[in-house]
Amino acid sequence: MRLTVAQLAERLGAELVGDGCGQISAVGTIEAAGENEVAFVRGSKQNHVHFGTTANGKHISAAKQSLAGAVITGMRIEDLDKPQLIVKNVNAALIEALSIFAPELKPVTEGIDPTAKVADNAKIDSGAAIGAGVVIEDGAEIGLNSVIGSGCKIGQNSKVGGNCRLDSNVVVYHNCHIGNNVVIQANTTIGSTGFGYSLIDGSHKLIPHNGGVVIEDFVEIGANCCIDRAKFGNTTIGAGTKIDNLVQIAHNVVIGKNCLIAGLVGISGSCRLGDGVILAGQVGLADNIEIGNGVIVGAQAGVMNDIGAGEKVLGSPAIDIKEALRTMSLTMRLPKLNKQLKQLSKRVENLEKTKE
Amino acid sequence: MRLTVAQLAERLGAELVGDGCGQISAVGTIEAAGENEVAFVRGSKQNHVHFGTTANGKHISAAKQSLAGAVITGMRIEDLDKPQLIVKNVNAALIEALSIFAPELKPVTEGIDPTAKVADNAKIDSGAAIGAGVVIEDGAEIGLNSVIGSGCKIGQNSKVGGNCRLDSNVVVYHNCHIGNNVVIQANTTIGSTGFGYSLIDGSHKLIPHNGGVVIEDFVEIGANCCIDRAKFGNTTIGAGTKIDNLVQIAHNVVIGKNCLIAGLVGISGSCRLGDGVILAGQVGLADNIEIGNGVIVGAQAGVMNDIGAGEKVLGSPAIDIKEALRTMSLTMRLPKLNKQLKQLSKRVENLEKTKE
Amino acid sequence: MRLTVAQLAERLGAELVGDGCGQISAVGTIEAAGENEVAFVRGSKQNHVHFGTTANGKHISAAKQSLAGAVITGMRIEDLDKPQLIVKNVNAALIEALSIFAPELKPVTEGIDPTAKVADNAKIDSGAAIGAGVVIEDGAEIGLNSVIGSGCKIGQNSKVGGNCRLDSNVVVYHNCHIGNNVVIQANTTIGSTGFGYSLIDGSHKLIPHNGGVVIEDFVEIGANCCIDRAKFGNTTIGAGTKIDNLVQIAHNVVIGKNCLIAGLVGISGSCRLGDGVILAGQVGLADNIEIGNGVIVGAQAGVMNDIGAGEKVLGSPAIDIKEALRTMSLTMRLPKLNKQLKQLSKRVENLEKTKE
Repeated sequence: MRLTVAQLAERLGAELVGDGCGQISAVGTIEAAGENEVAFVRGSKQNHVHFGTTANGKHISAAKQSLAGAVITGMRIEDLDKPQLIVKNVNAALIEALSIFAPELKPVTEGIDPTAKVADNAKIDSGAAIGAGVVIEDGAEIGLNSVIGSGCKIGQNSKVGGNCRLDSNVVVYHNCHIGNNVVIQANTTIGSTGFGYSLIDGSHKLIPHNGGVVIEDFVEIGANCCIDRAKFGNTTIGAGTKIDNLVQIAHNVVIGKNCLIAGLVGISGSCRLGDGVILAGQVGLADNIEIGNGVIVGAQAGVMNDIGAGEKVLGSPAIDIKEALRTMSLTMRLPKLNKQLKQLSKRVENLEKTKE
Repeated sequence: MRLTVAQLAERLGAELVGDGCGQISAVGTIEAAGENEVAFVRGSKQNHVHFGTTANGKHISAAKQSLAGAVITGMRIEDLDKPQLIVKNVNAALIEALSIFAPELKPVTEGIDPTAKVADNAKIDSGAAIGAGVVIEDGAEIGLNSVIGSGCKIGQNSKVGGNCRLDSNVVVYHNCHIGNNVVIQANTTIGSTGFGYSLIDGSHKLIPHNGGVVIEDFVEIGANCCIDRAKFGNTTIGAGTKIDNLVQIAHNVVIGKNCLIAGLVGISGSCRLGDGVILAGQVGLADNIEIGNGVIVGAQAGVMNDIGAGEKVLGSPAIDIKEALRTMSLTMRLPKLNKQLKQLSKRVENLEKTKE
Repeated sequence: MRLTVAQLAERLGAELVGDGCGQISAVGTIEAAGENEVAFVRGSKQNHVHFGTTANGKHISAAKQSLAGAVITGMRIEDLDKPQLIVKNVNAALIEALSIFAPELKPVTEGIDPTAKVADNAKIDSGAAIGAGVVIEDGAEIGLNSVIGSGCKIGQNSKVGGNCRLDSNVVVYHNCHIGNNVVIQANTTIGSTGFGYSLIDGSHKLIPHNGGVVIEDFVEIGANCCIDRAKFGNTTIGAGTKIDNLVQIAHNVVIGKNCLIAGLVGISGSCRLGDGVILAGQVGLADNIEIGNGVIVGAQAGVMNDIGAGEKVLGSPAIDIKEALRTMSLTMRLPKLNKQLKQLSKRVENLEKTKE
């Protein structure tokens, strides 16, 4: 795909400042982009799961030094010697530009690969693509236009909806229900038996897991994640929720809609998350906790109690983020406080001596 | 499977209070169970790996509002309008009830799937089931009635005992020894080379890993775990130990019997754990540490020193749990302590002024 | 392989003290080695990623009690009743000895397994071994003598250099570039789409990931890791860098040369690491952070800001390691400080009373 700067501006609904004749064929970083690449000038507020911000001045200076053929920006940059495409929503423009210049790949082949093993009573809808070495067991169903990557296993009676994409080597156990437009990346495991044991006569006996997993529409799950099946009922991931890589979601967890769950998070058994919850990287939730709508949990926090809607927490144990930051800052000042305490003690001693 | 309430009571050895005629066909949650489901009333002390408890009153109230056809409980509930099955051990009854009503699945097919690749000198015992696309290399052995899921790889000279279940896409490298009645869930890796390097002439040289992995009887390992092989000798997981998902166990680690290791735990090289050790979620152990019998390590703790038998630790660095909780509570009171210190300083200043 | 003690000493360039006639066929631990095994006496400074050291005296005593046929040591041990091989560099000798006595395995079979599915326009160099069930897509290339383990998937246009080893079930997405002499262990995912979403009209829209992954020469990656592709440009792992198991490396991260990254580490998007950086177990880096050359980050640290070259940091949030240790030690003394503050307050009260 190759567009002139002017054509790209039109596609993005952007205001073009400068020459529109240059050719653009890719998106690049502001530091490394060449003359046929368009680069983004960040600086408008970003939507970060992790902490960290990006300074405005730094990026304008980078834009001026950049060799990019054009830049896309949320506000006009003065004294810039290259064309700029001014957009209202930089994030939306980023998505659009990346979609326009996405690398061209050969489309997947519709139908069932001859090396796949599909049970006679499994149901494969039209338009679906079943990759090499896939195993689809009895009673399983694959919906319209879904792509099941090579090496995937779909267990008995599990259902995958329409327009889904399961990448290579994903394992879905039996009796799991995956909605429409779901993406699951490589090497992820759905429906494994949870970590539920009872100590009986000195040894740990597994509690059978009769339940399943329900993954609602538009959920996206990263690579090498684990979502355990329920003991009874279903472990549930609400519509529109996005999950990063290497995330552990235990049995009977219920997650609401449009949550963001970053890498290496661990959610213990029977936790219930509301809608729009954000868990940053390496967060851990103790079992059976209720997290309200819109809660944000900072990186590496360890949540041990219910969190009310809209709260922001941090720390292990997790507390209100403002309190946590004040506490962290005082903790780092402990050597100073300790010194002050010692000096004060000395002064009191002196006063006491005087008294005598 | 469908039983009357009375039949279920008999199967569970429970005292039945109320009508025994209702039909039960599944176990449900107290909140969502319907008339043909039995639900559990929690409230007796549970055996939790993570912190968190369940309040009695809350669950009795839930039992009264429940639409379940019957409830199973550890103690009689007054004024309950539905049949109750009173059992001595709620956990044992839970396991039994879930076993009775387990979903019916088509059994695995005995024998070697035609798409599996089994070396001529590998030994497959009778009753074993070798799934689609499995690779079993030279000298490997699979024991009586063991089920090797589709896509598994069993390396040279590795041995899997009897009655084992390896789920799809498990990779077992060479020279590993897996006992009897072992379960390994999907996408787990056993016998990878450990993270052992020496800095020689400015670059990191791998220390060869000549050793193997020994997994004793009745061990159960979750999905997407990694257990590295030893440099020499064996990385060893003791009989009856249970491991959750996404757990990292490094080279030369030796774990005792009947331990519980929760999700996202990392155990560094050459650690030695006694029997009955419990590591909660996201715990990390520094290398070469000795953990005594029965030690409990709280969630997210970072253990940097040996821990004596029976101790309970928490925090990073991990210390005695009572001390840790006191320290955490004081840390959260730091803003108050800081204020007190300032006020005290002021008072001392006043006293000093008076003295002058 | 079987050598006399004298032959082994010669192979290792070691000074032999004692009898050289014994037969050695393996390396063992000092505690468990038998008469045909050589064991290592540790005690010279080790090169640890994690904290933890090994005491000298303890190991000499173990050497004296050992049943090993010979020991390898960095310095002569007095009054030892068995042959000792004194070497200048114990780590180099360990690597050499383990290489000599490595278990003998049947070599992999050159060529393409008949069950592999290789695209017509993929390019497989001579000497390469493509395992059972492997899928190699259009335009992909596998270099000279590289071994692609069973169940691996190599996406469109991805290139694997020469002398690489990808173990079973590794998934490499499209447009990834892997250099020469790279090792990737089982169940690892390379080139998955990163966790980049923009909130647009109330739902999280994926930012397309047009970029790829570049893995330079001599990189070694453990099992069950995830390395995400870039939004544009490339996620890059520098030459000679070694990565443990279950590590998450997000989109657009750039890692320098000869870094060591331990298990369960999470590196957020767009972080830039210099050369020789060491991240201990379970470390987390917030997004868009710059880590200078030679930085060491202690276990479980949470890094939220740039770290200058050569610094050592610890804690969450991570600060200078000396400061962090002092702070940690004072934190643990908080109960005592609190008591001192109370007593001091009492004494001030008394002084105030006297004044009146």
